[in-house]
Amino acid sequence: MNQEGNAFNPPHQSLPPFSRVIVSGGTHGNELAGLYLAKQWLQGKARGLERQTFSAKAVLSNPRASEVCRRYVDVDLNRCFTTECLNSPDADDMPYEIHRAKELNVLLGPKGSEQAVDFICDLHNTTSNMGVSILVYQDCHCFSLHMFKYIQSHVKSAPVYCAIFNTPKDRAYSLDAVAKYGIALEVGPQPQGVLRADILSHMAEALKLVLDFIDLYNQGTEFPSCEVEAYVKDKDFDFPRDPVTGELTATIHPERQDQDFQVMNPGDPLFQTFDGKTVNYSGSQPTYPFFINEAAYYEKKVAFSSSNKVSIRIPALRLQASAGGANRIS
Amino acid sequence: MNQEGNAFNPPHQSLPPFSRVIVSGGTHGNELAGLYLAKQWLQGKARGLERQTFSAKAVLSNPRASEVCRRYVDVDLNRCFTTECLNSPDADDMPYEIHRAKELNVLLGPKGSEQAVDFICDLHNTTSNMGVSILVYQDCHCFSLHMFKYIQSHVKSAPVYCAIFNTPKDRAYSLDAVAKYGIALEVGPQPQGVLRADILSHMAEALKLVLDFIDLYNQGTEFPSCEVEAYVKDKDFDFPRDPVTGELTATIHPERQDQDFQVMNPGDPLFQTFDGKTVNYSGSQPTYPFFINEAAYYEKKVAFSSSNKVSIRIPALRLQASAGGANRIS
Repeated sequence: MNQEGNAFNPPHQSLPPFSRVIVSGGTHGNELAGLYLAKQWLQGKARGLERQTFSAKAVLSNPRASEVCRRYVDVDLNRCFTTECLNSPDADDMPYEIHRAKELNVLLGPKGSEQAVDFICDLHNTTSNMGVSILVYQDCHCFSLHMFKYIQSHVKSAPVYCAIFNTPKDRAYSLDAVAKYGIALEVGPQPQGVLRADILSHMAEALKLVLDFIDLYNQGTEFPSCEVEAYVKDKDFDFPRDPVTGELTATIHPERQDQDFQVMNPGDPLFQTFDGKTVNYSGSQPTYPFFINEAAYYEKKVAFSSSNKVSIRIPALRLQASAGGANRIS
Repeated sequence: MNQEGNAFNPPHQSLPPFSRVIVSGGTHGNELAGLYLAKQWLQGKARGLERQTFSAKAVLSNPRASEVCRRYVDVDLNRCFTTECLNSPDADDMPYEIHRAKELNVLLGPKGSEQAVDFICDLHNTTSNMGVSILVYQDCHCFSLHMFKYIQSHVKSAPVYCAIFNTPKDRAYSLDAVAKYGIALEVGPQPQGVLRADILSHMAEALKLVLDFIDLYNQGTEFPSCEVEAYVKDKDFDFPRDPVTGELTATIHPERQDQDFQVMNPGDPLFQTFDGKTVNYSGSQPTYPFFINEAAYYEKKVAFSSSNKVSIRIPALRLQASAGGANRIS
C-alpha cells in the first residue's frame, strides 16, 4: 500500500507520466455497459478518450463471448492473466479465452515488463449492489488510491467504494494486472445481458474521472496526502448446499441482499433457507460483505466475499521530476 | 374473454373440477425462482402442492438448460408449443428444446385434447419490474381472470398485474397452452442466474394462491361477477439500432426503466441514445409498456411490449353442477 515513511508525514510519491492508457470493455461478454462503451469508441461513434496529455485506446477484450452475450465461451477470461497462465505453452485445444489472454498480453503487456502499457481501466458490471466500485490489487501504487479518492469526491449519483485484493502481481488474474497500473471499474446492480441507462451513466462518469485524473497527474497536479477508506478482501463464502447433491439449500437473506459494503455483525441474518429458516452470520468479528449474490459467482461457489474496512493514509502524489522509465515504487 | 350475456348481468360460468394440476419451473434455465421451487418439490424437500381436492405435480421443464443456467440450449423452449411445432415430424437433428416440447406434450397434453391436464402454472422470472404478473391468452376462460383477481386481492408485498396475449390457441407458443387452462406466473425484477429471496417469496406466495383458488373452486366456492383491470398486449417495440450494423444505438430512458404497466403518453421519454439524446414515444395514443428491458428479449429485438389497459367485467364463476368431462366454454 506504499505506506512508506512516517504515516503522519509521508514523503511524496511520484511516477513518470502515463501515456499509454487502455480502456477495456467486454472482458465478460454479458456485462453490457462496458461492452457498449468499448464498441462505441471502436466504431468511432463516441469521443471522450482524448485528454491534453494522452489519448486512451479502447479494447474489446472478449469479442466471441460478447457476440453471444455470455460471460465467456470456454473459460472465464478474467481469471487467465496469471503469469503462469500467460506463460503456459500454446496448444491446439487451448480454450478460446486462454488464447485471447495471451493475445491481449502481447498487445498490452507483456505483464510485468517495461513494455507493458501504463494503465488499464477494465470495465465490469455486477448484479450486486456495489455502486461504483474500484477494484485494485494489494500491491497497487498509491496512484490508484488517489484516483479512487478523486472519483469518490466527484461522483454524486452513486456510492463509490474501493475494494483491495491481497493477490501478488504474478498471481493477479485479471486483465488490469497486465498493465503497470490498473483498476477494474465494477458498476452495479445490473442484470447480465441488460443495459440500464443509469448504470451506463455511472460507468461513463467514473471512467471520465479516471481519465481526468490521469491527465491532471500528467500535467503536474499535486494530490496531497490523505486518508482513504477501503475494503480489504478477506474470504469467499459459499451458499449453504446439500452435502449430497451440492444443490443450494438457501439464498441470501432479504436483510442482507443489496447491502454490499455494509457491516455484518456476528449473529446478523445472512441466508434464508428454502424452508424459511434464517441462517445467521457465525463469524466472530464484524465483516463487510461485497459481491453479494453476484450471478456469475454461483458456479464459483461464492455467495459473497467478506472484507475488512480499513482507513489508509496515502502519501502525497506528484509527477516524477525527471520522466525516465516507469518507476514502480509499490 | 367470455363476455357472454349482458355485460352488466352476465350468467354464471362453470367448469368441471380441476384435478390434474401442474406447476412447472425451469422452462427457462436461468430463471431461478421457479427452477428452485420445482427442484425442491421434485426432491421431496418442499411441501405445499397438496390441497383437499387435488395434489399438484411439479415438472422441471428444461433440465438441460437448467443444468447450465441458460435460458435454453438450442432454441427457446417456451416458443415451441404451437400446434405446428408439436406436430412437426421428428428428426435426428431436431433442436433439443423441440424434442423436449414434444415430450412435455405427451406427458401433459396432447395440447387441445381431452387428455390434456386441467391446469398448468408455468413459473418465470423477468429482469423487468413486473412485480407478480399473470400472463394469459386471449381465449382464456374467465377462470384465469378470477384467479388473477384472487391473487391480486391477497398479495400485499408486490403489485399484481394481468397481461393478456391475443394469440389463438393453436398458435399459443408457451408451455401453459398445453393444458386445458393455464397461466404463466412472471415475477420480477430478478437478474438471470440470481435467486433473490424477495422474488422467491413473491413467487411462492402467488403460487400458493393459485392452488388455493383452484381448491376453493373445486370445493364449490362461488366467485361473484366482478371487474378486472388487465393489459392487453398490443405490439413489440425494438431498440433504436444502427441501420447498417444492427447494433443498439440507445437503451431504455431512465425515466421509463422499471416503469412497467405505467402509462406512457405520446411525447414521453422512451429511449436514451448513447450520445445522450432523448427519443420520445412517437405513438399517437397512450400505451402501457411491459417487459421493459428484459434481458432475454434483446435477441428477439424487443425493447418492450406495448399494451392497452382495459377493464373487463367477468361473469360469476362456480363449479359445474354435474362434473362430467372438461367443458371448455371459452
